[in-house]
Amino acid sequence: MAVRLDDKHVRDFIQPHELEAIQCQVEAAHQVLHQGTGLGNDFLGWLTLPDDYDKEEFARIQKAAEKIRSDSDVLIVIGIGGSYLGARAAIEFLHSPLYNNLKKDTPDIYFAGNSISSSALNDILSLCEGRDVSVNVISKSGTTTEPAIAFRVFKKYLEERYGVEGAKGRIYATTDKEKGTLKKLADEQGYETFVVPDNVGGRFSVLTAVGLLPIAVSGADIGAIMQGASDAAKAYANPSLDQNDCYRYAALRNILYRKGKAIELLVSYEPQFTMVAEWWKQLYGESEGKDGKSLFPASVTFSTDLHSMGQFIQDGTRNLFETVVLFDKVRSELIIEEDPNDGDGLNFLAGKPMSYVNRKAFEGTVLAHTDGGVPNLVLSIPEANAYEYGYMTYFFEKACGISGYMMGVNPFNQPGVEDYKRNMFALLGKPGYEAQKQALEQRLQ
Amino acid sequence: MAVRLDDKHVRDFIQPHELEAIQCQVEAAHQVLHQGTGLGNDFLGWLTLPDDYDKEEFARIQKAAEKIRSDSDVLIVIGIGGSYLGARAAIEFLHSPLYNNLKKDTPDIYFAGNSISSSALNDILSLCEGRDVSVNVISKSGTTTEPAIAFRVFKKYLEERYGVEGAKGRIYATTDKEKGTLKKLADEQGYETFVVPDNVGGRFSVLTAVGLLPIAVSGADIGAIMQGASDAAKAYANPSLDQNDCYRYAALRNILYRKGKAIELLVSYEPQFTMVAEWWKQLYGESEGKDGKSLFPASVTFSTDLHSMGQFIQDGTRNLFETVVLFDKVRSELIIEEDPNDGDGLNFLAGKPMSYVNRKAFEGTVLAHTDGGVPNLVLSIPEANAYEYGYMTYFFEKACGISGYMMGVNPFNQPGVEDYKRNMFALLGKPGYEAQKQALEQRLQ
Repeated sequence: MAVRLDDKHVRDFIQPHELEAIQCQVEAAHQVLHQGTGLGNDFLGWLTLPDDYDKEEFARIQKAAEKIRSDSDVLIVIGIGGSYLGARAAIEFLHSPLYNNLKKDTPDIYFAGNSISSSALNDILSLCEGRDVSVNVISKSGTTTEPAIAFRVFKKYLEERYGVEGAKGRIYATTDKEKGTLKKLADEQGYETFVVPDNVGGRFSVLTAVGLLPIAVSGADIGAIMQGASDAAKAYANPSLDQNDCYRYAALRNILYRKGKAIELLVSYEPQFTMVAEWWKQLYGESEGKDGKSLFPASVTFSTDLHSMGQFIQDGTRNLFETVVLFDKVRSELIIEEDPNDGDGLNFLAGKPMSYVNRKAFEGTVLAHTDGGVPNLVLSIPEANAYEYGYMTYFFEKACGISGYMMGVNPFNQPGVEDYKRNMFALLGKPGYEAQKQALEQRLQ
Repeated sequence: MAVRLDDKHVRDFIQPHELEAIQCQVEAAHQVLHQGTGLGNDFLGWLTLPDDYDKEEFARIQKAAEKIRSDSDVLIVIGIGGSYLGARAAIEFLHSPLYNNLKKDTPDIYFAGNSISSSALNDILSLCEGRDVSVNVISKSGTTTEPAIAFRVFKKYLEERYGVEGAKGRIYATTDKEKGTLKKLADEQGYETFVVPDNVGGRFSVLTAVGLLPIAVSGADIGAIMQGASDAAKAYANPSLDQNDCYRYAALRNILYRKGKAIELLVSYEPQFTMVAEWWKQLYGESEGKDGKSLFPASVTFSTDLHSMGQFIQDGTRNLFETVVLFDKVRSELIIEEDPNDGDGLNFLAGKPMSYVNRKAFEGTVLAHTDGGVPNLVLSIPEANAYEYGYMTYFFEKACGISGYMMGVNPFNQPGVEDYKRNMFALLGKPGYEAQKQALEQRLQ
């Protein structure tokens, strides 16, 4: 199996019979998920997506990516939440968090429309100066405030630089297949469009055009990504905890939650995983964080954060557990060399690969943290390539579906995200929201 | 006052008499801090640093920064924990998270030696190709594994490119004033050295040479930073909660903790604050996370993370509160323009500054989240400039000292950080750590 779960470091915290006791809940979750009888069953498209995705559209994605690579120095990806995190995570994971800074023969890829910061938007505008630009705007409806503001700015920018006609060939819209304001505009203008499927929620959408177009522009092999996801779908079809690491992950985190662990810390030892952890936080936080329940998802990158959050993890409030993601093989190796001087006392490491030291840091840490009362789940992944990315993505998505049903929530809605928007629209005086404005303003006095 | 605390949005959660009741504990914390009679009193140098810092060294920092700006395209800053986060946070805060990508007349600044990832180190090495490089290595002892490995690599790199003599003029060591292997090496080689003071812990060291040299290289006004910190030191000298927003922040977070809030989420609406939040996580996590106690420090950047963690915050486990940091004035503004088409329905915002929309997003969110049962503290800062950076830094540092004493811990040590290191050294076969190796390896089987 491509993703392997080692639960050795939770054995001081969880007895074998606890897994046995929860097996029937896992099976129940498996049934409602696969039979589509649970809450949120309108949004189960991600489950079979790795095999039944639209092959014609997939080919168009690859062609569009090729065109963008050939005529653009910069791709601006406009989207927020699930229309932002997946693609960015994949690009940093498959290349580097410094993708835009490193020498390469693919375009720089910047993400806009994921905040309301004018400073951030102006920065990205300034990066386009003197360089050829394409835009991929991603929004199911076209009216989400953040991407809509950014797209207004970039549409105008492209039209000024390339003319209205020229701009049309540089704008790619990923949106609803038939309705919504962005779809309407795209059809009027003749932008190439890709589909946000109706039955795939934003946080589960990275393996649709939402994620795949920007990822393909970065030069990553999106066919291999889908193959990895497809193999994972087959591997995680058996509801027995003995034979399904994905379900075992879901079960163990529920057990730990029920023992009072309130926080799950996703840990890695490679900075290229940091944005995947941000994607994971949305996946789990938004799927399970409702009805007053659920694990708070947080993340750290070690050893960096052993020198910031390490003290708390070792010895602070005992309300957390760690899920560590390891890679068997690193993207690029470095051998520590002998220094005749040895002033730093590191010669005992001479000739050793740095990845060996990083692995020993993990081993030392997992023992220290479990000694400190922090259970550790360990996920091992062969390497950070496209195939494994697809496999890992499906692992986390399916574990999330199972875990959410075990938690007793609807894992596929996000009603709480609307509350701030309603208030914001009222305070902004948006037509249709006038009623609450005054009452809200009073509360701000 | 430069930093203002608004506690209106905790009033549904905290009664006025609760602050009154805790005033005596604030005063007690103030006394032990200022009289130096509390735990960890060897590390109180940060308290008076904004006024009694070494002026001669400060001038040397500015001169060195000028030299680096004149002879280098890239500065590599090697350090971890407190020798990394402060400078990076300040540079992103004062310029942009895209500082290295934006056009500018100051060097790119990359941070190395803050992980054991060979991929990350190789990436940074590759960025140096064909560009003039200087290195600032920051380590009190010179033997911390991560920066020591990175410095070994970069020392050799500079010596190969510039010759042994040429390299000496490009290496700046920030280290102990007299002892340790880095100080010894620096003296032997004739590197210019700066001091990590004995009485300032790593996480409190950003206003020493540790932070100031890289910050000065970025072109920021470090004199203004120190002035801001000095003014904050004067402003927060009065122990009365009525007159000290810094102490009120410390008191309120302790009250919320004692009411069962386990997580403090530091929130901002500007991506340029994101790394400051990482610095804050070390400051609070490492100062207070001990003896099985303390708030788990986490952070989000809105509105980005309203579309990922927003659901959890609105409606998940009710174990958290938010501390929101706002800026009265943004770094750069953008006016939303009229669109004759208005397909996105945003014309009701035409003519409005984006910062106005961002402010309404905050207002809508603070009301939604408090309605959802999440107390909100709000800190307002005039703008993200050097003076306010210094002021804000001192605010958070002093609040941390007061809060830690109120929490009943030693806010200035970090014993738990050593545990993983001991294990790692044993597993790596470091001389002197042989005894535990076998026992640890057995536990990993």
